[in-house]
Amino acid sequence: MTSTMGRNLVVTTFGESAGKYVGAVIDGLPAGLPVSEEDIRFELSFRKTGRRLVSGRREDDIPEIVSGVYRGRTTGAPVAVIVKNKDSQPVLYQEVSHKPRPGHADLAFIMKYGRENWDFVGGGRSSARETLSRVIAGTFARKLLLMVNTEVAAYLKSVGEISDEGSTDFQGAVDSRKFPTRASSPEMDRKFSELIERLFQEGESTGGIVEIMARGVPHGLGDPVFWKIKATLASALMSLPAATGFEYGLGFGASKMLGSQASDSIVLDEGKGLALERNLSGGILGGITTGMDLVVRCAFKPTSSIRKPARTVDLDTMKPDIISVTGRHDPVVAVRGVSVAESMVALVLADYAMHEGLIPPSRIREEDAVRIEERWKGFMKRFAP
Amino acid sequence: MTSTMGRNLVVTTFGESAGKYVGAVIDGLPAGLPVSEEDIRFELSFRKTGRRLVSGRREDDIPEIVSGVYRGRTTGAPVAVIVKNKDSQPVLYQEVSHKPRPGHADLAFIMKYGRENWDFVGGGRSSARETLSRVIAGTFARKLLLMVNTEVAAYLKSVGEISDEGSTDFQGAVDSRKFPTRASSPEMDRKFSELIERLFQEGESTGGIVEIMARGVPHGLGDPVFWKIKATLASALMSLPAATGFEYGLGFGASKMLGSQASDSIVLDEGKGLALERNLSGGILGGITTGMDLVVRCAFKPTSSIRKPARTVDLDTMKPDIISVTGRHDPVVAVRGVSVAESMVALVLADYAMHEGLIPPSRIREEDAVRIEERWKGFMKRFAP
Amino acid sequence: MTSTMGRNLVVTTFGESAGKYVGAVIDGLPAGLPVSEEDIRFELSFRKTGRRLVSGRREDDIPEIVSGVYRGRTTGAPVAVIVKNKDSQPVLYQEVSHKPRPGHADLAFIMKYGRENWDFVGGGRSSARETLSRVIAGTFARKLLLMVNTEVAAYLKSVGEISDEGSTDFQGAVDSRKFPTRASSPEMDRKFSELIERLFQEGESTGGIVEIMARGVPHGLGDPVFWKIKATLASALMSLPAATGFEYGLGFGASKMLGSQASDSIVLDEGKGLALERNLSGGILGGITTGMDLVVRCAFKPTSSIRKPARTVDLDTMKPDIISVTGRHDPVVAVRGVSVAESMVALVLADYAMHEGLIPPSRIREEDAVRIEERWKGFMKRFAP
Amino acid sequence: MTSTMGRNLVVTTFGESAGKYVGAVIDGLPAGLPVSEEDIRFELSFRKTGRRLVSGRREDDIPEIVSGVYRGRTTGAPVAVIVKNKDSQPVLYQEVSHKPRPGHADLAFIMKYGRENWDFVGGGRSSARETLSRVIAGTFARKLLLMVNTEVAAYLKSVGEISDEGSTDFQGAVDSRKFPTRASSPEMDRKFSELIERLFQEGESTGGIVEIMARGVPHGLGDPVFWKIKATLASALMSLPAATGFEYGLGFGASKMLGSQASDSIVLDEGKGLALERNLSGGILGGITTGMDLVVRCAFKPTSSIRKPARTVDLDTMKPDIISVTGRHDPVVAVRGVSVAESMVALVLADYAMHEGLIPPSRIREEDAVRIEERWKGFMKRFAP
Repeated sequence: MTSTMGRNLVVTTFGESAGKYVGAVIDGLPAGLPVSEEDIRFELSFRKTGRRLVSGRREDDIPEIVSGVYRGRTTGAPVAVIVKNKDSQPVLYQEVSHKPRPGHADLAFIMKYGRENWDFVGGGRSSARETLSRVIAGTFARKLLLMVNTEVAAYLKSVGEISDEGSTDFQGAVDSRKFPTRASSPEMDRKFSELIERLFQEGESTGGIVEIMARGVPHGLGDPVFWKIKATLASALMSLPAATGFEYGLGFGASKMLGSQASDSIVLDEGKGLALERNLSGGILGGITTGMDLVVRCAFKPTSSIRKPARTVDLDTMKPDIISVTGRHDPVVAVRGVSVAESMVALVLADYAMHEGLIPPSRIREEDAVRIEERWKGFMKRFAP
Repeated sequence: MTSTMGRNLVVTTFGESAGKYVGAVIDGLPAGLPVSEEDIRFELSFRKTGRRLVSGRREDDIPEIVSGVYRGRTTGAPVAVIVKNKDSQPVLYQEVSHKPRPGHADLAFIMKYGRENWDFVGGGRSSARETLSRVIAGTFARKLLLMVNTEVAAYLKSVGEISDEGSTDFQGAVDSRKFPTRASSPEMDRKFSELIERLFQEGESTGGIVEIMARGVPHGLGDPVFWKIKATLASALMSLPAATGFEYGLGFGASKMLGSQASDSIVLDEGKGLALERNLSGGILGGITTGMDLVVRCAFKPTSSIRKPARTVDLDTMKPDIISVTGRHDPVVAVRGVSVAESMVALVLADYAMHEGLIPPSRIREEDAVRIEERWKGFMKRFAP
Repeated sequence: MTSTMGRNLVVTTFGESAGKYVGAVIDGLPAGLPVSEEDIRFELSFRKTGRRLVSGRREDDIPEIVSGVYRGRTTGAPVAVIVKNKDSQPVLYQEVSHKPRPGHADLAFIMKYGRENWDFVGGGRSSARETLSRVIAGTFARKLLLMVNTEVAAYLKSVGEISDEGSTDFQGAVDSRKFPTRASSPEMDRKFSELIERLFQEGESTGGIVEIMARGVPHGLGDPVFWKIKATLASALMSLPAATGFEYGLGFGASKMLGSQASDSIVLDEGKGLALERNLSGGILGGITTGMDLVVRCAFKPTSSIRKPARTVDLDTMKPDIISVTGRHDPVVAVRGVSVAESMVALVLADYAMHEGLIPPSRIREEDAVRIEERWKGFMKRFAP
Repeated sequence: MTSTMGRNLVVTTFGESAGKYVGAVIDGLPAGLPVSEEDIRFELSFRKTGRRLVSGRREDDIPEIVSGVYRGRTTGAPVAVIVKNKDSQPVLYQEVSHKPRPGHADLAFIMKYGRENWDFVGGGRSSARETLSRVIAGTFARKLLLMVNTEVAAYLKSVGEISDEGSTDFQGAVDSRKFPTRASSPEMDRKFSELIERLFQEGESTGGIVEIMARGVPHGLGDPVFWKIKATLASALMSLPAATGFEYGLGFGASKMLGSQASDSIVLDEGKGLALERNLSGGILGGITTGMDLVVRCAFKPTSSIRKPARTVDLDTMKPDIISVTGRHDPVVAVRGVSVAESMVALVLADYAMHEGLIPPSRIREEDAVRIEERWKGFMKRFAP
């Protein structure tokens, strides 16, 4: 089921929503990286279910590091992290096992892997819960990236028809951690919240767009052919449940523009050397990072599981039927998508930075470890719940 | 420079526009697949430069198979194909070597690999000419897919502000081979042509969107986590030069819809079993193919190389300067993108079909070879120049 | 630290001897394979420490399946298995952290990953305990291989100067499970036991050779170039701690023979078709399996950790010093190597069989599952402790 | 057919003996490495057929670099090199296509890929000619390794029963380039030559052992689990045609030794720091290089194709038959194996050095390029024909 990603920073995820644990193995980390269960828990808190506005499922999501870390530092060995599922409810999936939910993975999953275990599997690996493993892994990637002074931040750019049309910069994305919806301002947070609340009452759902940025990205990440960084970012984000589109820089908008409009002058930036005047290409040229801010976007479709009845086929009788999903589901998966998308981008950037030799493959120096930890602590302090 | 892609069907490309040859090695092919230099030439003709509307560069593009094929059949060994560059003009790139073109890979490329060889390299691997190798490889993928009765077709959906709003079906995409612009109808072809002609006169360029479809796709291609087929398709298409966005099914549009609007009922299709009423998810659910038509789109930005002067920096003097690119360039790269995008999708589908064991890894039976060849000949006949 | 192996059957291991858990994630398994914690425990019992003749370390080694299995069948999702370390003793490694043991990984490990965590790491990933994860994964491979009627068995061919010169066949290797030393006969078991006991008394150690065979191997596994099956088997076995040599068929002996002596006639075998008269090439020709029994051997060096004092350097003082390792160690690692080597060969064969499409990638039919389980139960019954 | 190897330095080979070209694509090379067709030709001269003592096949073996190199320096792009086959004789294989040669890949190959093209394929990818691509790639690896002052050298240690029992050191291995048999001394060269000449007269063949060493190997290459350097070296060497065994350091000999005998004291080496007194582990501990000389050995079986008649089965009649191979074949493939084995070890070391960031992934500095070229020129001068 291909649950491994990355070339240098290699992440393997496992676990189903209805099983004992979900977890991740993060391999390829150099020795000496400071990391703790507290760090992971902090990151997980930003995708947590059970918060207002998102799914009613309640999980404590307490990560346990079971290997590869000693006295707060990685040892160079693979780090395995597990999180116990305390609130799994296999019974929810019994109806689904013979009445696949429209828009959900059910139908494709059943045709491929069979129905025998459906009450347990319940699309377990296609479930949003799998993304918890990605955020765990992302925590390590984020800390690694501090080695090269790179930070990643994302925010919720639109929910349904409501779009954040202001030009949010990197700092705005960072600050979205203050808001439950991960909007980039109190105003947008209020607007998004109201819409989400209303949808929840109506048993409806809608889609959304997440914008992910990175600052301090080293230039030279990416290769000109198949390993263009835009290709790998696209793959990473499109591997998320419910993701239906990816773009960077001008994205789809570029398809309507004239060459002269889309042309981004190369200029001299005092103290920094060469720069692009407007960064219209979102930090990437020819599939290689330019050192400018990375800007990518990911579209999420509306949550497929809604209370409103939908037409399906009963697989036992092979007759048309109706399904109304009453389980615990977010009206807008894109909200939780912010934290997960952020993690995926961090994983890709860290992998590429290792490939370019910017992060040492085997061992981080003590002074770098101290610097990383200081910066991280400041960050955590700022957004502590 | 990571010039290899695929897991089962493994493609390696090489060659620069200014060098002796461009080529590809296609490995993982079973023995017994019928294929000829004529087949490749036929496919290459649809991305050919030198046709009206596209770049003035003239290449005969005569593919030479140098290994892995004997008496018109693959032997199971890697197939290397080379194409001589007859019309390379390194001199064109001399100005570029110290004045990077805005929007082009130049700047990122030079920072990463150096300027020493720029007159030769000229972004050689970032050049559109590299995509010739992809179409070569795509020819093999297309023939392999006939083994499982799968066909891939693409057409040009929009050029700048002009968009094909009709609902082009798979057959429409196939028929786009009749038109120079790869539009799906004579009307759209005329509109696109007029716009492209005008842009050419003005030294301007614009972007476009290519839609790629596949019919007869087996269900079950793709995995629920990192190897979702939408992720790999995204990576394949975003690895193309000038590609700025990817989407499938409802794509970015889904982000604005309500769950009930985007819900696609599961129904019984006479004689075919389960189906999705509207195929809104473009043939993919949970990252796995459903057996419905695959529908993905790729946005291309305007050609960066335009005659209109653009501001850059002279790397020799480190002073602001102006560059006006007078070389041979398509006003709309998306036109040639149709053929290349089609090839990339075929490569991904063939790779996944091999992974599922639907195409034998070592040897194709004679009866299948005959069936493949018959169907291919019919196809070639229909679109022969 | 590259803890992932395999292309189709992908195994990731994690955990240190001194940590909380060791474990493995086995990915790429089709749904429907019958497997239980009892199966794994059975396999682990054959590498168990704490048995007479091997290391004094006592572990219950109780495997816990935490994902990917439901009601005794794989679901198609990655299977994570963890085993709690009950008897870890980090303190043992304190001396080692500044006095690297000759012949052990210590020196290379410390130079690469640092000394900071040495009391914990203690070469943790280089430790024999890591091989527990391989036997866990091997259990799944062995069961998968029953799908194609392939069985793997190994036995201890030599210990120091004492060598089993009889021609042990596949059944002999299977029956070695009856003997603590994994010798192929009561006589060899007695001889090996006496030697090992004596070495133990003397604080000495010695090396050994393990021969691994497989019966019922499908022909056609392996590729003629880099993915020759002999290359992957060599890699798999040489990735074991203390392994110093690999050979197959005539092995190193072939280097001294004449071509006419080493020539193995191709003959007609009644009912089976083509066969090799003497199977001198150990079931492999041109890197591809022939369908004959696979025969490979792996040499293990003497345990490096011996009570006899050895000269080293104290890393704190950078002065010559003496180390005498009093920890729990097997006099002959090759004894435990039998079970681990067997697992590695099973993993390689299963991976290759999946590559050839002989084991379905997504789902096993119920009748095959039943057949596999019956055969496995018979096997377990026969060798139950 | 998996013709690609390596993680950072990625090599793809193609071509059959009976085809138009054989070649290799070497990808992952940084820009700025000095390399020429002359360098490759120099390296190829040491595996050349048509020299006295080896196969009668005559090839000029003139390498043509078709991409990735400009003005004598790599550009960072994949380097494709092709060599025209001038002397292919498909007709030789006609008998073989229905009468598989004992000991050769024929039988396994035909069962897997079919007989249809056998007159062309003739085990083409299993042929010794494929190794030409490896020597081409090895040339690049050898030059890359000079970046970190690492050199690789191999010599012929034994032919049949005649073994070089002296303790050949690294310099001895280097000097073997002076002798046609690649022996390490004039005496051994004479003995080997006489034996080979006699075997040739008798239509016989025999096996041999090649020892490969490397000097200046950085410490820290290799990982403690699956990516142990001994595992990858084993895979690389066992991927050679006719290779039947691999060992490093004490190798199989270690299996008979006592722990106290095999113990290699850690000592202080003036000016170098820590060292192993006797380097019994061949430069590797725990799968990681120690910085001491690398010492590995590879056993080759006797050439299977001998004039002496051998029993086989005629596949057309399915009746027993006799085959006597009169084609051009070396009596001792191990002679040519020296050059090829050397190349494989260089490829592995360069790949690992890149992984550790010791060789820059994108661009080599000019001063390093100059240093590499000087050293290489000296080397070529010394062994010029």
